[in-house]
Amino acid sequence: MKVLNDILGYENLKIYQDLDFFCFSLDSVLLANFATIRLRDKNICDFGTGNAVIPLILSKRTSSNIIGVEIQEKLYMLANESILYNNLDKQIKIINSDIADKEKFDFNEYFDLILCNPPYFPISEGSNVNLSIEKRIARHEFCMDLRKMLKVAKKSLKNNGNLAIVHRPERLMEILTLMIEYGIEPKRIRFVYEKYGKDSNIILVEGQKAGKKGLKVESPLILYNSDGSMTEEYSSITKEVRK
Amino acid sequence: MKVLNDILGYENLKIYQDLDFFCFSLDSVLLANFATIRLRDKNICDFGTGNAVIPLILSKRTSSNIIGVEIQEKLYMLANESILYNNLDKQIKIINSDIADKEKFDFNEYFDLILCNPPYFPISEGSNVNLSIEKRIARHEFCMDLRKMLKVAKKSLKNNGNLAIVHRPERLMEILTLMIEYGIEPKRIRFVYEKYGKDSNIILVEGQKAGKKGLKVESPLILYNSDGSMTEEYSSITKEVRK
Repeated sequence: MKVLNDILGYENLKIYQDLDFFCFSLDSVLLANFATIRLRDKNICDFGTGNAVIPLILSKRTSSNIIGVEIQEKLYMLANESILYNNLDKQIKIINSDIADKEKFDFNEYFDLILCNPPYFPISEGSNVNLSIEKRIARHEFCMDLRKMLKVAKKSLKNNGNLAIVHRPERLMEILTLMIEYGIEPKRIRFVYEKYGKDSNIILVEGQKAGKKGLKVESPLILYNSDGSMTEEYSSITKEVRK
Repeated sequence: MKVLNDILGYENLKIYQDLDFFCFSLDSVLLANFATIRLRDKNICDFGTGNAVIPLILSKRTSSNIIGVEIQEKLYMLANESILYNNLDKQIKIINSDIADKEKFDFNEYFDLILCNPPYFPISEGSNVNLSIEKRIARHEFCMDLRKMLKVAKKSLKNNGNLAIVHRPERLMEILTLMIEYGIEPKRIRFVYEKYGKDSNIILVEGQKAGKKGLKVESPLILYNSDGSMTEEYSSITKEVRK
């Protein structure tokens, strides 16, 4: 079932979602806000863009060219519908491809910034076998795992280009270790907490290809106050429209 | 110059400090509060105990035996004076030794918990050459670096024993990588922030020898409110006396 929704906090952006698929999540909104966009950045890419929520939000932060890559054809078509609806087809292009398919997606040292909200879960026997294949691809590492993502990111990022990803704290070690293995130096981490006093459930990590050592653990991002209301920062993220 | 002070928040603990040395710091107080102490834990060790601030605080949390190891003789003597002053000489023993000196300090799979507030800074040319040798040993990795600490920790911890350390966020990657190399699985991390909105400046990490994978990033610890007053949690840490 296809529906047309507002993107959280972005009154002027509409997005098509298919409820049979993995719908866009808070995580993508946080990532689109977290990534560093430098004035000189010309080309931005979103790996596994789904219904293009990240490119749509980024269009409010930058005028750079944005490419989204999505392996699932139905999501690719949905993404294009949203892009047309918002009149963003000059700035955002979606490619229907696996990120490692060099026939359809082949860039060398081209991007200034790559973002990725990858599948969070390793494949394990019987993991969520009840889900549709579409949802499994979005949630489990069937088509893109961390190593594959980093390998392609390394190849397609310019020197000093940035990679920004959102993930789960349980996999922090693996993420940082692989980033270093692929020459992408971890530079910024932000931990997201539902409430003060709870464990972190989302991490935001940014690394720089051939970057200097020096990791910053930035201010925690706490989403809700103890009374259940949104914190000032969370509320400002989901309201902000920047350009 | 030797002075007798209260330990931050611990009205019933006095500690001798020599102002020519590195005095105990907030970091040690946070570490002594952060470490997991299990009911079954019998033997606890503090590597590089300095004037024994960590053993002194731990004595309020547990009745287990506590051993502190300190390479600097003057600090060792100061530590013993404080222990006697507080009548804790039955529970706390200090050994005047390098942690790797097997003549004086040799334990195999003996400790349930090891704590360490190590020197934070790698040795680099001209680094703080103006400091006294005593302060340099406490701040720079002259006598104990991360690898040495982890090697001795691995040897002297029981299986499933914990290692809790305090350090700087810049060295997070190195710490986690070395812990894994030495078979101590990172289990809990807590980032400490002076204020909400600032980068973290202290990290607390706990790992378990032969522990299962599964890292928790715990609630951030924020020390001060925006008006400069202590947060409730910080204030409770520096007031708490538990036993």
